[in-house]
Amino acid sequence: MHGELMLAEIREQPEALRRLVGQRSAIDQLAERLSGLRPQAVRLVAHGSSDNAASFGVYSFGRFGRTTAFRDTISLSVYYDEQLPMDGSLIVAISQSGRTPDVVDYVERLAGRGALAVAVTNDPSSPLAEAADLVMPLAAGPERAVAATKTYTSTVAALALLSGLLSEARSEVEEGVLRVAEQMEAILNETEEAAEQLAQAYTFCDRMFVLGRGFEFATAREVALKLMETCRIVTCPLTATDFAHGPVAAIEPLFPLWLVASQDPNLPATIEAGQRAAAAGAEIIACGSAADAIVEARRRFQLPPTEPTALAPILSILPGQLFARSLSLAKRMDPDAPVNLKKVTKAL
Amino acid sequence: MHGELMLAEIREQPEALRRLVGQRSAIDQLAERLSGLRPQAVRLVAHGSSDNAASFGVYSFGRFGRTTAFRDTISLSVYYDEQLPMDGSLIVAISQSGRTPDVVDYVERLAGRGALAVAVTNDPSSPLAEAADLVMPLAAGPERAVAATKTYTSTVAALALLSGLLSEARSEVEEGVLRVAEQMEAILNETEEAAEQLAQAYTFCDRMFVLGRGFEFATAREVALKLMETCRIVTCPLTATDFAHGPVAAIEPLFPLWLVASQDPNLPATIEAGQRAAAAGAEIIACGSAADAIVEARRRFQLPPTEPTALAPILSILPGQLFARSLSLAKRMDPDAPVNLKKVTKAL
Repeated sequence: MHGELMLAEIREQPEALRRLVGQRSAIDQLAERLSGLRPQAVRLVAHGSSDNAASFGVYSFGRFGRTTAFRDTISLSVYYDEQLPMDGSLIVAISQSGRTPDVVDYVERLAGRGALAVAVTNDPSSPLAEAADLVMPLAAGPERAVAATKTYTSTVAALALLSGLLSEARSEVEEGVLRVAEQMEAILNETEEAAEQLAQAYTFCDRMFVLGRGFEFATAREVALKLMETCRIVTCPLTATDFAHGPVAAIEPLFPLWLVASQDPNLPATIEAGQRAAAAGAEIIACGSAADAIVEARRRFQLPPTEPTALAPILSILPGQLFARSLSLAKRMDPDAPVNLKKVTKAL
Repeated sequence: MHGELMLAEIREQPEALRRLVGQRSAIDQLAERLSGLRPQAVRLVAHGSSDNAASFGVYSFGRFGRTTAFRDTISLSVYYDEQLPMDGSLIVAISQSGRTPDVVDYVERLAGRGALAVAVTNDPSSPLAEAADLVMPLAAGPERAVAATKTYTSTVAALALLSGLLSEARSEVEEGVLRVAEQMEAILNETEEAAEQLAQAYTFCDRMFVLGRGFEFATAREVALKLMETCRIVTCPLTATDFAHGPVAAIEPLFPLWLVASQDPNLPATIEAGQRAAAAGAEIIACGSAADAIVEARRRFQLPPTEPTALAPILSILPGQLFARSLSLAKRMDPDAPVNLKKVTKAL
């Protein structure tokens, strides 16, 4: 049946998270090399869902790793062949398959020039793993639906773990991820039902904005990507501030807007973005541990708060994944196999 | 008349670029402080159109400045209050008004902690200029239309100039910008006519993708923003690779796609993205110095090549600005004053 693969993989996420954390010897090895390392900067490189997870890494390496991290440009090194100083950098290259061509190319070119490279991949024998100095295996098991789900959440958790290894936060992160896995398991069935019901009303929706800020910008990007690849919805992921600097002008009555709202120092800005959107007529779906704070929202996925709060994105993506899958089916499409897409993007 | 301000400011761009480069003493002062500086990294902070220009800065600081640059997260410092090491960083904070609250806040918090801060602003007496160590004035003159045009192109050029000051590329960049100003002047009238004619056909269009890669990703982001803020079109700016990793699945027959294609080492990937989009039925508008290489495009804005090619974005944005303005009028909207927007975004 259409959408069975994607659903099975969404449901498998709590178990995949436990497998990730359970790789004691692999994580011990990483800890040995990374503990006390003070990288000048963490360079995250990835595409697609992995790049969305990298947006979380920008914050988690700051929070747990006490280090500046950024999503590096791949073009500058790989296509423009600029040879910039790399000393003291920690490269974190992410690819579910370990076969994304220019991510592998980036690591092959740059790891030799004074940087240490970690591959985050679901295939520890892939070319990316070969090219890197260290490997963080996702251990998510084979992912057969084209749209990534369990490898996304496991990548977010893996980046939190890596960040924690740079400081003294390993056990805080490990225990936090295991708690999130339990929380996700507990809400799976009800979220699945709520998402399916909600999706019916969006059958003819073909555009949307998705807002999230800080740690949750990753969630906004991933919800938007799921909607584009499985539902042919044109969306744009925006921070609350991006939104206020222009796209708010595109809002008209009944314009659908997915708003990620979690307990977080950014929450006041998120609430204000919701108010401005609602004032312009937006039809808001709020999702996160602070969804109930978005009083203007028409629908809410109120999620339990995570501990630490920085791990919220692992849980916040769940309603978006389930909504995208159900909406794809409502639109008579197959979420497991979007047109024009293959599981591993070979070219470009 | 609606759209007069925006048109006047688009037309004024060549003159604004000349004024920017003509600020000899201001640039001399900057050169004195920046020449030979070897920052560990350039941290770009901005929102809206200024942040789109910052996407160009990521590449221009690499190319002309031989330095790693990235768009830094503002949330991590300003909202999450993380105190990360800043030593050796060059902060480049961009705000047309010099009054974007969290950009000013970022500079006030971080400039004191071992980083040097340059403000790029159209108002050298603004709070941002006060907070920074150095100022690169845009000298674009007052911008009265809400949608930024001349301050965007002048910011792109200013970032190229700043990049050039870090190495020996000052005169290469200055001469290049002056040449682009002439090229823009030469094509203004014909581009205006072509954009107006094209816009008529898009009167009922409400969604679009905009693709650009490398230096031209800035152009893709800025075209998308203009369409969102002046035309209520929902768009998403994507690199060629982003596009292939998911959003290509949203393409159906007659789906409109704006493709920025310039003479550049990235061109083969851009051509391939165009082919994949066209195979899925996309209606492509190609724009740039290599627009003619996109044989599948239905419409083309073939632009003259710039010298150096890295300055192409200053010119490539012109058709997008003019198209957005004309389309806004075709949609019976006022491009000078989009609903829900103010010139200076105060909150969030």
